[in-house]
Amino acid sequence: QEISDTKFGKGMFNFTAKDSSFSVNFAPRIQFRSMTTWNYDGENFGNPEQNFLIRRARLKFKGFAYSPKLQYKIELGLSNRDISGANQFTGNAPRFILDAVVMWNFYENFELWVGQTKLPGNIERVISSGNLEFIDRSILNSHFNLDRDVGFQLRHLIHWGGDFYTREKFAFSQGEGRNITTGNLGGFEYTGRLELLPFGEFEHGGDYSSADLVREETPKLMMGFTYDFNDNAVKTRGNQGSYMFLSNNDLYQTDITTTFLDAMFKYEGFSLMTEYAHRNAKEPVAMQQGESTPTGDIVLEGNAFNIQAGYVFPSNYQIAARYTENSYANVTGEADRNEYTLGLSKYIVGHKLKVQTDFNYDTLGGIQDEISWRLGFDLHF
Amino acid sequence: QEISDTKFGKGMFNFTAKDSSFSVNFAPRIQFRSMTTWNYDGENFGNPEQNFLIRRARLKFKGFAYSPKLQYKIELGLSNRDISGANQFTGNAPRFILDAVVMWNFYENFELWVGQTKLPGNIERVISSGNLEFIDRSILNSHFNLDRDVGFQLRHLIHWGGDFYTREKFAFSQGEGRNITTGNLGGFEYTGRLELLPFGEFEHGGDYSSADLVREETPKLMMGFTYDFNDNAVKTRGNQGSYMFLSNNDLYQTDITTTFLDAMFKYEGFSLMTEYAHRNAKEPVAMQQGESTPTGDIVLEGNAFNIQAGYVFPSNYQIAARYTENSYANVTGEADRNEYTLGLSKYIVGHKLKVQTDFNYDTLGGIQDEISWRLGFDLHF
Amino acid sequence: QEISDTKFGKGMFNFTAKDSSFSVNFAPRIQFRSMTTWNYDGENFGNPEQNFLIRRARLKFKGFAYSPKLQYKIELGLSNRDISGANQFTGNAPRFILDAVVMWNFYENFELWVGQTKLPGNIERVISSGNLEFIDRSILNSHFNLDRDVGFQLRHLIHWGGDFYTREKFAFSQGEGRNITTGNLGGFEYTGRLELLPFGEFEHGGDYSSADLVREETPKLMMGFTYDFNDNAVKTRGNQGSYMFLSNNDLYQTDITTTFLDAMFKYEGFSLMTEYAHRNAKEPVAMQQGESTPTGDIVLEGNAFNIQAGYVFPSNYQIAARYTENSYANVTGEADRNEYTLGLSKYIVGHKLKVQTDFNYDTLGGIQDEISWRLGFDLHF
Repeated sequence: QEISDTKFGKGMFNFTAKDSSFSVNFAPRIQFRSMTTWNYDGENFGNPEQNFLIRRARLKFKGFAYSPKLQYKIELGLSNRDISGANQFTGNAPRFILDAVVMWNFYENFELWVGQTKLPGNIERVISSGNLEFIDRSILNSHFNLDRDVGFQLRHLIHWGGDFYTREKFAFSQGEGRNITTGNLGGFEYTGRLELLPFGEFEHGGDYSSADLVREETPKLMMGFTYDFNDNAVKTRGNQGSYMFLSNNDLYQTDITTTFLDAMFKYEGFSLMTEYAHRNAKEPVAMQQGESTPTGDIVLEGNAFNIQAGYVFPSNYQIAARYTENSYANVTGEADRNEYTLGLSKYIVGHKLKVQTDFNYDTLGGIQDEISWRLGFDLHF
Repeated sequence: QEISDTKFGKGMFNFTAKDSSFSVNFAPRIQFRSMTTWNYDGENFGNPEQNFLIRRARLKFKGFAYSPKLQYKIELGLSNRDISGANQFTGNAPRFILDAVVMWNFYENFELWVGQTKLPGNIERVISSGNLEFIDRSILNSHFNLDRDVGFQLRHLIHWGGDFYTREKFAFSQGEGRNITTGNLGGFEYTGRLELLPFGEFEHGGDYSSADLVREETPKLMMGFTYDFNDNAVKTRGNQGSYMFLSNNDLYQTDITTTFLDAMFKYEGFSLMTEYAHRNAKEPVAMQQGESTPTGDIVLEGNAFNIQAGYVFPSNYQIAARYTENSYANVTGEADRNEYTLGLSKYIVGHKLKVQTDFNYDTLGGIQDEISWRLGFDLHF
Repeated sequence: QEISDTKFGKGMFNFTAKDSSFSVNFAPRIQFRSMTTWNYDGENFGNPEQNFLIRRARLKFKGFAYSPKLQYKIELGLSNRDISGANQFTGNAPRFILDAVVMWNFYENFELWVGQTKLPGNIERVISSGNLEFIDRSILNSHFNLDRDVGFQLRHLIHWGGDFYTREKFAFSQGEGRNITTGNLGGFEYTGRLELLPFGEFEHGGDYSSADLVREETPKLMMGFTYDFNDNAVKTRGNQGSYMFLSNNDLYQTDITTTFLDAMFKYEGFSLMTEYAHRNAKEPVAMQQGESTPTGDIVLEGNAFNIQAGYVFPSNYQIAARYTENSYANVTGEADRNEYTLGLSKYIVGHKLKVQTDFNYDTLGGIQDEISWRLGFDLHF
């Protein structure tokens, strides 16, 4: 048996080549959860439904190769929830690869990213699922996020002087989501995001990690705005959702625009994150080719608002609350959904070893719909 | 190139963090086999059928995280035989994860296990497939074992004085088997197991490893009794077997009880393992809802007996023999199956590098059914 | 964080046990590509189709176990293109395992290989997809190669004196391709290959790596001849292609013979590779059992020729050109296809970190068919 200089939570393997020709941080991760749900049948909440689940099991590789200016990230999903989604567009094969991307710092503050990874969408999505303050993300995120795609990204940082920074992120991608083997359908996807950091950068990248575990000594704020255009999208949520098939097996195409406005604030253990999302389409109602007959598929137009706040006690217990409302356009025929969440977390070793629980109360079209209680842990090397 | 202090058979990577914050034993493993089968057509044994197969290819991580009191195990299956079984209840995705479990020694001799792993069922099942004395397990195991499930286990050890120990194991699990994404159907599964070790603990955990490779200097015995109750099970073998669908696509539910009595004995290279299994259901014949029409599915009720013995020569060659009989309840309409196996193994580096062969003769309903010859190797870091 | 003695391109982990009981070279690899295709519609080349793709993402383990005379290789594919192909013969599960093989140098220059790996077919196929001088292999390879299979191989090297060497390779395999769980259908596959090395062995195994990156100081040549017989094959290209089903769900069987003649030459940065392939079947047109009705499946009989040459400049830029023609037998009803390729590569760290682009012009039945432009990179630890 050998001895390693790595510590728990810094990767299972974490080393740099002596000649500085590469570095590796390899980390597996598992997330277990139990979920109990009571559905409202119009008069009462019924008997609970139970679900025990290995929700996530992942292998992550990151570091640099050849030069510290060329970074890479490979993340593989192994749990059935992560790899599901096989269809004719994925070679009828499960979707293992989450990220496979290289990030090249080719000039000063510029980075070119090539491969498959998350688009620069809403902050909640880009925060790793391992760094959340609730058991899982909000319903805003479930229905409006931009997820991952394959293509190119250009990223830039400007220091305007003092504590003021901005980050500019642009993506040019296929627009079909991850692990697609059949190429582009319709047009490409174009994403732009601007981030303002008026009070300086967060400690340890804390703007993209929930809960103020580092207890920022001065207030830190990040405000972001994302604009995304999916040219001739073929799915109901852009690169996500269901394929909008026509009766002749072609795909209905329409331009879909998604915008986000979001912010993260952290100070002395307190954190506040808020997001507004909006999606609209040029022609949201899918029609049979050359006809005025609707196919039944409709782009999920609408807007959503999410706000969540938490406080981490010096004991590394955190209480957090969240309110989310999803309002869909009338054309979708979808009822609005609101969710109220109350969460408690014990961060034993930060986000790397934690136990979390949360309670959720949902309304649908203004009427009570379901209550759920979740309990889980994360083990992340 | 670097130098490692690890030896072959102790993991490919095997280290502890200098600050004792975690440890890792990572080991890949492959198992190749050739199988030749002659089927009896009522008059003769026909031409042989051949199968060359990578039967198992696995990646295993185990060790402790944060504290030696918090152990983990992650085992991933990669071979097509291991990952098959995708259906609507697994997200239509293959089943990669075998084990993903943390084991917390929270107090004295108590351990709490959370996640997906093997239930405390019959000894033959719980012995790793890498530590068998034949090419594969018996037909008792194929048709009666409790396999893996997701949930909670409580484990305890009592030292009664002298060489007398007992182990108590309890599991509370979902009852649907591994890698299920759709949650619990019917009720939960409850498993209890008691193990008696009247002559002390086996060397190197030898009670859960076939063949007495350590050549126990004094006789060692482990006797176990398992009781398992699957409340409102929906599959023909509890959490295993086929789903018992009704014509309306609901699932037939009935309580299934499985019990095992088993023992392992080892002394100076000799080993003997024996098991008795019994399964019965409250209402074994699946009926359409509200009707007396059978659906065609029947719980595989019955009992089985297995006995196997082997002797390891000082040269690390082993000869072993096995006799198994599976007797099904009349209601199942299944003919009884007996199997006679003769095996030869050469343990080059224990179970980590070995070549094995075995001959099997099967009868079905008392009549000769098939002969098979298997040859294989295991490479396990 | 630790320090490693490994260098980029020599494996992410690369070490030998202090007691020489095993060694490991573990390397992940990703390959991204963009492909733009213009199809000819009879009058014009239409609008381009686009495809951004993680074409390959792999994990490789190799080294020796127990003794330097017992080597192993495990290679896993993760990309959707690599793992697709699930069907009833693969347990309806994706095909993760590429290689899982042990190679035993049991006597002098003899090696016995057992497991799943590439057959000793045409040189282009056996060169790793990570060591190509174009973005991907030729159409000769796509339609005529022997791919991987599971079984046994015997390999031998003779040094005839001076610089003259020959290699003899024999394979006895199942003949159904990789990751099959249902065993042999029809008969086995028998492969023999003879390789002549009249001017000595290539530096660093360069005969099985495209592009003369080591700039051979003296001319090096390898000439190979492969003969492959697939007894009672059930697929249109032997162990590859489509299954030839009969209307009663049995499989049509016929003997398929494939031969290759190929050569690799390298000298001072220049490399030339050429291949001739031929496939024929005993009864190429699949017929319904006991009838003269064709099923529609026809073995892809024909022959093909490929020649490609490249020159690596001292700056590690390479230009390369390729010409391929596939001519199918009349019985197949397939039109002949020719492909002209022009490629440019920048080998930043040899084949381990490279950027490549190529242009392809295809004709079908002598008429222009499509133009494609590809751009990609490889990152291989």
